[in-house]
Amino acid sequence: MVVVSSDLFAIIEDDLALVEEELRRIVENASGLVPVVYRHTLDAGGKRIRPALVLLTAKALGCSNSRLPRLAAATEMVHLASLIHDDVVDGADRRRGRAAANAAWGTRVSVLVGDSLVARIYAELSRYGELETLTALSTAVERMCKAELRHMQVQMVGETLSEAGYYDVVRGKTGSLMAACCEIGARVAEATSMEREALICYGLGVGTTFQITDDLLDMVGDPEKLGKPVGNDLVTGKFALPIIYALHESKNGVRELLTELLQSGEISPSVLRDIVAVVDDLGGVDYTRNAAARFADEARTHLDVLPDSPCKDTLNALPDYVLQRVA
Amino acid sequence: MVVVSSDLFAIIEDDLALVEEELRRIVENASGLVPVVYRHTLDAGGKRIRPALVLLTAKALGCSNSRLPRLAAATEMVHLASLIHDDVVDGADRRRGRAAANAAWGTRVSVLVGDSLVARIYAELSRYGELETLTALSTAVERMCKAELRHMQVQMVGETLSEAGYYDVVRGKTGSLMAACCEIGARVAEATSMEREALICYGLGVGTTFQITDDLLDMVGDPEKLGKPVGNDLVTGKFALPIIYALHESKNGVRELLTELLQSGEISPSVLRDIVAVVDDLGGVDYTRNAAARFADEARTHLDVLPDSPCKDTLNALPDYVLQRVA
Repeated sequence: MVVVSSDLFAIIEDDLALVEEELRRIVENASGLVPVVYRHTLDAGGKRIRPALVLLTAKALGCSNSRLPRLAAATEMVHLASLIHDDVVDGADRRRGRAAANAAWGTRVSVLVGDSLVARIYAELSRYGELETLTALSTAVERMCKAELRHMQVQMVGETLSEAGYYDVVRGKTGSLMAACCEIGARVAEATSMEREALICYGLGVGTTFQITDDLLDMVGDPEKLGKPVGNDLVTGKFALPIIYALHESKNGVRELLTELLQSGEISPSVLRDIVAVVDDLGGVDYTRNAAARFADEARTHLDVLPDSPCKDTLNALPDYVLQRVA
Repeated sequence: MVVVSSDLFAIIEDDLALVEEELRRIVENASGLVPVVYRHTLDAGGKRIRPALVLLTAKALGCSNSRLPRLAAATEMVHLASLIHDDVVDGADRRRGRAAANAAWGTRVSVLVGDSLVARIYAELSRYGELETLTALSTAVERMCKAELRHMQVQMVGETLSEAGYYDVVRGKTGSLMAACCEIGARVAEATSMEREALICYGLGVGTTFQITDDLLDMVGDPEKLGKPVGNDLVTGKFALPIIYALHESKNGVRELLTELLQSGEISPSVLRDIVAVVDDLGGVDYTRNAAARFADEARTHLDVLPDSPCKDTLNALPDYVLQRVA
């Protein structure tokens, strides 16, 4: 069991261990390929940020309801199922240092296992009468798909997102599920609607920060540390903020050079180096870091609704933890 | 709007029109590719058997709750989403006389649109507090995926299902959703648990009959009438009852011939003709027709719990309608 639980979440270590038990229990009774593919994805680890958001928001509001680990696990299951489908969508070969499920078992298996996991979570939640969590999660999934499709559609017609359009996409892709996690925590804790709205905004901001840095890492990250190759978004033509900014800032000659590099099809390590050099030169990397930091700052402001507590401190530290990946 | 509503469902024509309105309303507010792909699939028609099962079972029990069209539409949405994903899984090019969604927009779009539709149905149902329908549908989807994966896994390791194993697969693949439709109708009508169980068995039987005949049509059907090419299951190696029976019945020389034909990879029209001839000669086609008829008969026996009514008559006629496709 390779769970990359950072010290950041030390304060909810015991609860996260319960979540881990839930995650494994959920597929225990499944047969065939479902538990195999699922465990492959689960064992690859991950930071369990989504369950942590459920736990931290609820506990920061003084709630330690016994339903929390189950609901927190459901958010991670939805996330894992979305990763399995994302890898089909992106044709990715690697994920967290291992073969991606679609590379290991093929598209067909990945599509069905993803569907099956989501169905199992919804079946469990509905059996337990968890209507609010069902609404929050399914609404988030719909937004995630919409954002993915939007990014893909722009790329299919050979266009580039505007900066505002890009923020919409990252907000939908990653912000909506993290916002749902905070909403779930707030609802279990019977938060006031003001507290709930603030925590939803916080989750949205953390998710947006996370996706912006994730997209930047796809350009400037270390493949060894990431456990997957970089430059994948460049190959699929799903341009992120560094490129969007650089294309916007570039003048004649440089713009043509950059466009030409981006259309190389196969992005070799040397082409990637060239692209990063041009983009960095135009200020795209710094601009992206600053944008992420702005979303992180904004996210933190919403925590003012919470009383002081160690859980609030952890929520406060989370955006910096996310930013630090691209420091 | 090309809805192939058969005369069979004349008695619930008005209700099915409301279901159709629901189906269109559900994606009205969606943007981007979701409504486009969805309408493409919706406009291809279909018999709307699943919504009809919800309506007929409820009405046969004297219920005409205003929630019925919404719940009936949800079952068809789940079905349509599963068709979109199935076509990715099978790599199908045609569906109901039109390009399959994955052939028209690619795997990536199909995966996301399918996910998005399911999420939207669950979000709607949970907002309306329809817990029982959520449980029934998500449990059915899990069983459908499990059955698909089982069939696929057997084929991946180069094995052939036993006859009993095949029935398990078709029961899961198609029976479980039709059973869920009957369960939903029974629950809305506040049926007794005996009535509910009987109707679930009926739905399971109708679905099993349907899938057995559907698989047979993939061998002996008319591509023009089906709106898709035949022989697809043979190409993907997902063998159905005619082949399973024929392989079991065949002796030395014929078995080798049949095995060789099945492994031709590309199944050309002439190879398909040869396969059908051998299988028919061994009694595989008749055996399959008879098996389907047995499931149809068995399904009908469960309707004894219902009082006499025109809706009961329609439920009684449905298995024959299904069988008649391969008469």
